[in-house]
Amino acid sequence: MGEVPESHPRYASLMARKMLTDAAKAGMLADSALIAHGRGEAFDYLLGENTCEPARKAIVETAARLKSSENCVISVNGNTVALAGSQLIACAAVLNCPIEVNIYYRTPERMEALLSALQVQRQQAVELYPELLSQISDVEILGGAPDGRIPNLDGPRANCHSDGILSADTILVPLEDGDRCEALIAMGKTVCVIDLNPLSRTARTATVTIVDELTRCVRILLGCLRQEPAPENTDWDNEANLQDAIEVILRRFE
Amino acid sequence: MGEVPESHPRYASLMARKMLTDAAKAGMLADSALIAHGRGEAFDYLLGENTCEPARKAIVETAARLKSSENCVISVNGNTVALAGSQLIACAAVLNCPIEVNIYYRTPERMEALLSALQVQRQQAVELYPELLSQISDVEILGGAPDGRIPNLDGPRANCHSDGILSADTILVPLEDGDRCEALIAMGKTVCVIDLNPLSRTARTATVTIVDELTRCVRILLGCLRQEPAPENTDWDNEANLQDAIEVILRRFE
Repeated sequence: MGEVPESHPRYASLMARKMLTDAAKAGMLADSALIAHGRGEAFDYLLGENTCEPARKAIVETAARLKSSENCVISVNGNTVALAGSQLIACAAVLNCPIEVNIYYRTPERMEALLSALQVQRQQAVELYPELLSQISDVEILGGAPDGRIPNLDGPRANCHSDGILSADTILVPLEDGDRCEALIAMGKTVCVIDLNPLSRTARTATVTIVDELTRCVRILLGCLRQEPAPENTDWDNEANLQDAIEVILRRFE
Repeated sequence: MGEVPESHPRYASLMARKMLTDAAKAGMLADSALIAHGRGEAFDYLLGENTCEPARKAIVETAARLKSSENCVISVNGNTVALAGSQLIACAAVLNCPIEVNIYYRTPERMEALLSALQVQRQQAVELYPELLSQISDVEILGGAPDGRIPNLDGPRANCHSDGILSADTILVPLEDGDRCEALIAMGKTVCVIDLNPLSRTARTATVTIVDELTRCVRILLGCLRQEPAPENTDWDNEANLQDAIEVILRRFE
């Protein structure tokens, strides 16, 4: 797969697969992580593998919410680190907020692999965005020593940092599961998610849902965060925006 | 995952995941196999995880085509063996036809793992269908020593047996890729496929396309094969049947 030329029509998709299969070999992912990625691929295929207009609007709104928050956090799981760790560290640098590793199938080995990968990605982020050097160096990476719990959520995935997810007013969670999204909303947080399935419980529960592929939209999000953001839209209608994303998919079937 | 009770609403889906992750650990699958399964899961989710009426019609038609063929073959890849090897051996037993392992990313280790798995599954098939004992024992399992090539197809995936895929007039290929499906059709064969994505090139190219989840539809297919089959429908309109499957998905988005 290393031989795929950048001009290949499926270059981005093939590279994402390679990043994930490499991450699986490095012990960063749960058994079901590649299957979850495949589900996303199918929805991205239905979206035409393009960032649709409803997704662009949701990215702009997410940038506005994050910028206007008191204290925000970016929550990452294995697939997110594998696919977009460096870009999300750059986002955290611009926002001056922490990144917190929070995974469903928590084992000490996976946590260690993910925290190590993020330190490597911090260096990659500096290479990609040298102008952000000092902010990138200051990004706190949490997850290794959780001292709090998300209420009304069972198991290790509820473990979190009191100075991270627990106290944040706004949280960006790429690739969230439905139960956790509901629990975060129930805590009164502004929850911005990235989810390729506009019908999922996560997509329908979140405050702002970006229906787009992670690596594509995170680059756009970073661009928005580095500009003067649009003001937060207090009338944001997430349901209507999801319906617009569904319309994009429906056109694919015509 | 061994603890999932049969009454769990997602039992079948969770068991399929377990079969695939176990097969991956046993060296039966390519790196991208779990991702491919995830794509299928997404389409099955859109189909409501049920065998839809258009799929039932395509299963009946497939049974009729296989029964009325002169010499048919069942072509299997890694995911197919992992998910439905025993049931397909039973189908081959009823049809008195061979099973041929034909994989995209062919390595000696994967071939060996798959051929070994099929021998274990042959015993499982006998336990499941003891009344088919002698026919199951007679099923030829091909793939280990290909002596022919599918014309107009590059790479090791073109390798096949002259007394299997090469000479068959009718071929059942669960989980086929688009290039190979086109090459088989170009050879003048009747190609019956199982594909959860009704928009895929495979689905649109095949003679008969069953838009259904493999483990669900193979059980129904086996039932059809063991009954007196409906006569082959020479007016079979695959495109119209695919459109009916698409309508099922579109209703999910309403």
